[in-house]
Amino acid sequence: MRYLTAGETHGPQLTAIIEGFPSNVTIDFEEINFQLGRRQKGYGRGRRMQIEKDTANIVGGVRHGKTTGAPIALVVENNDWKHWTSVMNIEPIEGNDETKRRVNRPRPGHADLNGGLKYNQRDLRNILERSSARETTMRVATGAVARQLLAAFGIKVASQVVRIGEVEVQRQELPIEDLIRITEESPLRVVDKEAEARMIAAIDAAKEDGDTLGGIVECVIEGVPVGLGSHVQWDRKLDGRIAQAVLSIQAFKGC
Amino acid sequence: MRYLTAGETHGPQLTAIIEGFPSNVTIDFEEINFQLGRRQKGYGRGRRMQIEKDTANIVGGVRHGKTTGAPIALVVENNDWKHWTSVMNIEPIEGNDETKRRVNRPRPGHADLNGGLKYNQRDLRNILERSSARETTMRVATGAVARQLLAAFGIKVASQVVRIGEVEVQRQELPIEDLIRITEESPLRVVDKEAEARMIAAIDAAKEDGDTLGGIVECVIEGVPVGLGSHVQWDRKLDGRIAQAVLSIQAFKGC
Amino acid sequence: MRYLTAGETHGPQLTAIIEGFPSNVTIDFEEINFQLGRRQKGYGRGRRMQIEKDTANIVGGVRHGKTTGAPIALVVENNDWKHWTSVMNIEPIEGNDETKRRVNRPRPGHADLNGGLKYNQRDLRNILERSSARETTMRVATGAVARQLLAAFGIKVASQVVRIGEVEVQRQELPIEDLIRITEESPLRVVDKEAEARMIAAIDAAKEDGDTLGGIVECVIEGVPVGLGSHVQWDRKLDGRIAQAVLSIQAFKGC
Amino acid sequence: MRYLTAGETHGPQLTAIIEGFPSNVTIDFEEINFQLGRRQKGYGRGRRMQIEKDTANIVGGVRHGKTTGAPIALVVENNDWKHWTSVMNIEPIEGNDETKRRVNRPRPGHADLNGGLKYNQRDLRNILERSSARETTMRVATGAVARQLLAAFGIKVASQVVRIGEVEVQRQELPIEDLIRITEESPLRVVDKEAEARMIAAIDAAKEDGDTLGGIVECVIEGVPVGLGSHVQWDRKLDGRIAQAVLSIQAFKGC
Repeated sequence: MRYLTAGETHGPQLTAIIEGFPSNVTIDFEEINFQLGRRQKGYGRGRRMQIEKDTANIVGGVRHGKTTGAPIALVVENNDWKHWTSVMNIEPIEGNDETKRRVNRPRPGHADLNGGLKYNQRDLRNILERSSARETTMRVATGAVARQLLAAFGIKVASQVVRIGEVEVQRQELPIEDLIRITEESPLRVVDKEAEARMIAAIDAAKEDGDTLGGIVECVIEGVPVGLGSHVQWDRKLDGRIAQAVLSIQAFKGC
Repeated sequence: MRYLTAGETHGPQLTAIIEGFPSNVTIDFEEINFQLGRRQKGYGRGRRMQIEKDTANIVGGVRHGKTTGAPIALVVENNDWKHWTSVMNIEPIEGNDETKRRVNRPRPGHADLNGGLKYNQRDLRNILERSSARETTMRVATGAVARQLLAAFGIKVASQVVRIGEVEVQRQELPIEDLIRITEESPLRVVDKEAEARMIAAIDAAKEDGDTLGGIVECVIEGVPVGLGSHVQWDRKLDGRIAQAVLSIQAFKGC
Repeated sequence: MRYLTAGETHGPQLTAIIEGFPSNVTIDFEEINFQLGRRQKGYGRGRRMQIEKDTANIVGGVRHGKTTGAPIALVVENNDWKHWTSVMNIEPIEGNDETKRRVNRPRPGHADLNGGLKYNQRDLRNILERSSARETTMRVATGAVARQLLAAFGIKVASQVVRIGEVEVQRQELPIEDLIRITEESPLRVVDKEAEARMIAAIDAAKEDGDTLGGIVECVIEGVPVGLGSHVQWDRKLDGRIAQAVLSIQAFKGC
Repeated sequence: MRYLTAGETHGPQLTAIIEGFPSNVTIDFEEINFQLGRRQKGYGRGRRMQIEKDTANIVGGVRHGKTTGAPIALVVENNDWKHWTSVMNIEPIEGNDETKRRVNRPRPGHADLNGGLKYNQRDLRNILERSSARETTMRVATGAVARQLLAAFGIKVASQVVRIGEVEVQRQELPIEDLIRITEESPLRVVDKEAEARMIAAIDAAKEDGDTLGGIVECVIEGVPVGLGSHVQWDRKLDGRIAQAVLSIQAFKGC
């Protein structure tokens, strides 16, 4: 299975193609939108997250609610596109519009400088439009499709925040269903309510200082069959492949 | 550079993502549609070709007429989609619509039987919708983008039909510009007018018999730099890569 | 499954690694050498073919006669290496040996010119040592291993020469076992004895003129399961993949 | 550039093929062996590390001390092979030797159980022979070749241990040349001598308890050009690719 994504933060749409997905998997469309909604939540998120309300349309590979084995094409339209038709026009534009919302100063910690040099772009908007966190939208959408394949095998996926800044949770053993339920109701995806209160305070304090906080997320997947990945060649090791997927997300680093 | 395509013949749209395309290449949108138009021409083509009039929209990777280095997303909408919303509905449908336009009999020489068995599909429409010649639309669209990169290096591409059925053309040495101009004006993309007349007669005769004719197409590419491909590993040999691209087109076989 | 090969015509050894081969397949070592022997036969072959007598050693991925799932490493040593230790020395050499057997004139129809320019080599031996037909030795060795997997599924592979120069065989329907047996005993791998005699005469005549002849080889594979390859994406079509494999062989062209 | 490795811990040899390496890079053979030697050092290493003294032979892709652009084949022979010819015989063996050194009990934290199930192996030696840390030998050998390409561009690579168990070093700013020199002389690759003494004590204590200690290694690479990797697609992000390479090493985990 392989996938490619395309699309800019303020472009007309985001696009993804998933290739090699099995046939006859029933697709729950609301589940994809539910996952896109989860991506947009989170305590202390910026304003942009609030104006978007992403929904995915499938435009290939699914018929009458089931996959056919053909590549699955997904589209998430930009609800705010009408305000960006000039700045982000695909076709050449007239007049001085080209300089509007031009980005000349690379932001530290972003792809702006590297990307601007690599792709020879004066207007760094041509870099940041593709390197911003909005790129993860299509990862979530393709992931939401992939989760439905996992679900067909009884595989369950949960995740929890176990640390933010200096605050660590008190760990508890929980059945995965409880872990899913509790984190889903928590603004920080934290099980330990007492730690969560201190995390919120820490986030608020950092925000006031114009700062951000790192943290640790833990993922639990239950029901995985033995034998995914392989020890026989470096690029088939599961740990390595998971690591690539995780560390390719913007702003993720090993601690 | 790599690309994936998605979409069904009668689905809402065809989609392609091109990854690894260089930045700062000026894209001529009309040129893409011109190439899509060329695909739809041809003496003796079926009716379907006449009702379609394909145009491609770029929805990612291009800004203000130039590529940015980001993946290029292309969409060709199905102009006839309104007649297929039930038969090809992505979502589950109610009632007995599911059996409408159902295809139960595999056609010889097509992917129907193989695909139906591989992907476990009773309704062979789930195979033929992806395996029909319409799939080449996105190859032409992505190819039309790639040609603009070639053009930037002064590389010229021409092709001519040199044989249909038993009729072979008389070869002539021509500058590539003439080859392009003459074939563009010929209904069969043939330079030799006398042979063309006999080819048309042969096609008409075959058509009357409910038959088709094979042929040979010749491609000439001028201005190619030395050193594309490589002799050092089997999967980097240029001949092999061209052969894969050509023979992966529906109904192409070596003679 | 994927594989890489390495090694020069007159280097110490040829090497291949096959990755993704299933476990618990019994490997018949003599069968690999038998296939290497078949590669070296053929009416009218040059002298070099006679001095070589290739045998493959497996040096990884097989234990006690069976594959383990680990990558399979294959080595074919150069029996003539002792005469080439200076010309083909891996390490730097002293004196004027470097100019010995230096190749300065690119041969038409070979990779010499392209490769020399691409890899910036004055001594074209650095190109021809990797681009010569000896490179196919490791394709045959890896293919001989792959055939044993096919054999485990009852898949049979045969091939015959159906045309050389202007001489075509009279086709006959034959069970695949007979096709294998008859071609194995024929110096040209031809079933039609009468055509074979004329082919031999044509080869002899061409040889006298310092020329060579083209031809057509036909491959028959029986017992293949339905559903290899896929219609859903251009690079998974079986015809295309076979075409790449075949046309990546030196001196193979479509007619 | 891509590479594959093959070979078992106690097999006749380890093999690697590097594909896509540029031509005309001068290869320092002693440097490869020096890197292999560094891999075998380390305070508290097991006995096996002491008996091996690895040296790499190049058997393809290099001529007269320089790369030619052809795939580079590397071999590291097993110096202890004579003691393993029966246990690890490639060919079938007679008698009860097959049960000698058979491994029936999967070791926790290793690939034994997963691999045994995936590849259907009763004798877990067929798994551990490929999944042991010896597999990294060919990574070091291929890395040692790659480093010579980096060196040609003035890129310098250093690494240091910054934590073992609970002991952390006091960080100091150092020019990369000093970092390389000091860590090379330290048994733990640690700059802070005081911390190193405590680390050695901690290792000794853990060893006495039959335990091991985790740690953190830091890598510094200087002189890297801007624009390696790319932000445009998930699988081209440099962080992700480095993460895959690192976490595919046996026993590496993010903390």
